[in-house]
Amino acid sequence: MIETETNVRVRYAETDQMGIVYHSHYLVWMEVGRIRMLEEIGIPYPDLEAMGYMLPVLEIGSKYHAPARFDDDIRIVCRIEERPSVRLRVDYTLWNGERKLMTSFSKHAFLSPENKPVKPPQAFEDVIAKYYERG
Amino acid sequence: MIETETNVRVRYAETDQMGIVYHSHYLVWMEVGRIRMLEEIGIPYPDLEAMGYMLPVLEIGSKYHAPARFDDDIRIVCRIEERPSVRLRVDYTLWNGERKLMTSFSKHAFLSPENKPVKPPQAFEDVIAKYYERG
Amino acid sequence: MIETETNVRVRYAETDQMGIVYHSHYLVWMEVGRIRMLEEIGIPYPDLEAMGYMLPVLEIGSKYHAPARFDDDIRIVCRIEERPSVRLRVDYTLWNGERKLMTSFSKHAFLSPENKPVKPPQAFEDVIAKYYERG
Amino acid sequence: MIETETNVRVRYAETDQMGIVYHSHYLVWMEVGRIRMLEEIGIPYPDLEAMGYMLPVLEIGSKYHAPARFDDDIRIVCRIEERPSVRLRVDYTLWNGERKLMTSFSKHAFLSPENKPVKPPQAFEDVIAKYYERG
Repeated sequence: MIETETNVRVRYAETDQMGIVYHSHYLVWMEVGRIRMLEEIGIPYPDLEAMGYMLPVLEIGSKYHAPARFDDDIRIVCRIEERPSVRLRVDYTLWNGERKLMTSFSKHAFLSPENKPVKPPQAFEDVIAKYYERG
Repeated sequence: MIETETNVRVRYAETDQMGIVYHSHYLVWMEVGRIRMLEEIGIPYPDLEAMGYMLPVLEIGSKYHAPARFDDDIRIVCRIEERPSVRLRVDYTLWNGERKLMTSFSKHAFLSPENKPVKPPQAFEDVIAKYYERG
Repeated sequence: MIETETNVRVRYAETDQMGIVYHSHYLVWMEVGRIRMLEEIGIPYPDLEAMGYMLPVLEIGSKYHAPARFDDDIRIVCRIEERPSVRLRVDYTLWNGERKLMTSFSKHAFLSPENKPVKPPQAFEDVIAKYYERG
Repeated sequence: MIETETNVRVRYAETDQMGIVYHSHYLVWMEVGRIRMLEEIGIPYPDLEAMGYMLPVLEIGSKYHAPARFDDDIRIVCRIEERPSVRLRVDYTLWNGERKLMTSFSKHAFLSPENKPVKPPQAFEDVIAKYYERG
């Protein structure tokens, strides 16, 4: 399993008049975590795009357990729990200290520049093979 | 069942470098649809807040079927399919003409100013009773 | 002089924990007004991009006179006061009813796909000539 | 003079279909820099709000020199060049390595919870006095 961590500090712009973070911004933080995860495992997203791949979001499922607030330091834990094939699923847990704020997942597909679903690039396959050795 | 419709025109700010709408903005559009729905059925959200109620998002589930693009005219169909109790679930379908872009839901709870779950306000109960007559 | 009007309804997502609209969103509204203005005078921005032109923002100057709030209906008045050449300046006044919320301007340049400054497309020149007849 | 630095990494969500950062996000980064500056000089913004002060934006002036792109590491230099009184002006320069992306300023006023302009809190005056000794 691949698991990485990233932190974001809550921006004033991300709050709403309820005094908490507006719910759509968590999706942006999930992406920040996902981008750092790809970077850490050696497949920076800018390189993927330079090779002609896109990785759009197909599905999101998010449960909000507790609100984030301005200036909180949020820890984003990203996991790829299942070996990816043409689809990639990432699971997320967001924490403020010991307090769990959110559990979430996103599903993605690799697309060609022509918006056709394609096999992941070999560099990605190689990294995945390293993490998910066949038994 | 309650069903209402709203339209939004895609803003340039909502696109990303893939040339399509960044996925988190759909949640904002869902909220635009939800706010108009509450207004149409006679319970404007600003009135709810003035009465001391908040209606934060507890859960989101979204499937992205086709991308929205700059300047598209998006039709947001909102439905309350189940009679709400302390929880409210809203279902959404987003269309660009005849093309379905997204199916989604959000779940909400009524909260007091002290962030405690509370029964919906009587005005809301009355509207709901009108739409969901007991058989 | 060219002058057009557009309206936007304030979204919940646009508020912050001060209970007013976060200041960067006014720039998005200015863009909404600018895009509608180009559409109204017969040069839709998507057409400009399809012809290979971009119109990025070079400069912004904004004075915030009074805050916008959730659900307010904001009127955006856009004006092209000076005849554009290679540069385009747009002036904005934002109103909530009779209350002036903001006065602002943006300056733009026409760029080629290679990011080089270029003369505006002929279609734009023709429209401008119609509005700014030489005396 | 007070001068501090902060870094932000460009998020995918901040790009637009021109392939560069959408211009309104720079205002959010300016705020990130401003918040860190207040923290560094010993007047964290959350403390200001807890004491009942707000510091809304009254005016923005921004020149965009070169575009920021996805994943760039942006350095935000903030300066308080003039001794603040009831108004506070902050100047910003944004850099990507040696490339200057933007020069900008923001003007602010201290407001009371009743939205009345007020003198800055004593803690702020004390810090300012330390930096701007009377000659």
